[in-house]
Amino acid sequence: MLSPKQRVFIEAGRKEFVRNGYGSSSIRTIAQEAGVSLSALYYHYKNKQDLLLAILLDGVDTYDAVCNAELARVGDDPVEQIRAFVKGNVIFRTQFPEQGRMIATEVRNLEPEGARLYEERRRAGRRRIRDIIDRGVAQGVFTTKYPDDCRRSILAMVSAIANWYDPAGPDDPDEIAERYADLSLALLCPTITGGEGDRR
Amino acid sequence: MLSPKQRVFIEAGRKEFVRNGYGSSSIRTIAQEAGVSLSALYYHYKNKQDLLLAILLDGVDTYDAVCNAELARVGDDPVEQIRAFVKGNVIFRTQFPEQGRMIATEVRNLEPEGARLYEERRRAGRRRIRDIIDRGVAQGVFTTKYPDDCRRSILAMVSAIANWYDPAGPDDPDEIAERYADLSLALLCPTITGGEGDRR
Repeated sequence: MLSPKQRVFIEAGRKEFVRNGYGSSSIRTIAQEAGVSLSALYYHYKNKQDLLLAILLDGVDTYDAVCNAELARVGDDPVEQIRAFVKGNVIFRTQFPEQGRMIATEVRNLEPEGARLYEERRRAGRRRIRDIIDRGVAQGVFTTKYPDDCRRSILAMVSAIANWYDPAGPDDPDEIAERYADLSLALLCPTITGGEGDRR
Repeated sequence: MLSPKQRVFIEAGRKEFVRNGYGSSSIRTIAQEAGVSLSALYYHYKNKQDLLLAILLDGVDTYDAVCNAELARVGDDPVEQIRAFVKGNVIFRTQFPEQGRMIATEVRNLEPEGARLYEERRRAGRRRIRDIIDRGVAQGVFTTKYPDDCRRSILAMVSAIANWYDPAGPDDPDEIAERYADLSLALLCPTITGGEGDRR
């Protein structure tokens, strides 16, 4: 759990990194933004890299919490679980856009040690959808021949929502979640007319 | 068309930007990498920003060339065109990974004037898949209720190939293109059992 002070630093850092990118961001500006002295910031995070890692891990925490909350609402039917997983992802992309953007653009700025820690956390998260798909395939509910590509495609599709979603626009997150759950299930349950068999 | 000299600068710049990110990249290192003096580089590109724009537009040129070449091989059947479009995208992501990475991560570093020029070019490119999908929907070949989400999803799915594709790995680009064309058509032609109608 983050302390209230850490939360302030993480939010100030995220704001600055999203605005200027990691390379061009200044730890001094982040301290100003957070309303603290540079040394107070250095007391909690030993450098800009350390703060970047904390921000990214906080993003993963948020993502995990949102997905797990949606999955907790449903039983163990793989179709329902895909709907819940997609909904969690849509909530993350629409309600926490800056966390999502950090993950999309700044992970590559992690140094090896941080990259390893981050990758470990992400791997655990990716297991969530992999397990749902594996169970659906084992039960014959998901008929796709390409479960790995489906998994990657679903993750890519929902991530891309961040590129066009506009909180002031006409699209309601619940409706988006419905549509992307439908699309995800179209990938997982194709039919002879719906692509996989259709090699005209 | 780029002159051979411009091509050298663009490749040196791309290498440095991919390695360090735009913010942390140095125009001096790029000149060294290109084997020219800083003033020779400045003769062609007035600053780092100008070079970034040239690199991104070169990436779009490559993308357009690859997609158009694939589309030129097929007639006007929307299913064939989706297969060709996806194949062009897979070729771009697997054969030109650095161009793809630049587009994925550095567009946000364009200043307003460059961003406007770049966006104009991209908009023209996006029209390509939009037109194919519109025609397929009009002909009743594509039965999706969500053509816009399909378009965005297909673009996201094929872009994400760059995240896992390994030229030394077992996956052959032609096979990947087949799989992602199948998946794209599964999105565009869903059936009652395949997602959209399946609201258990």
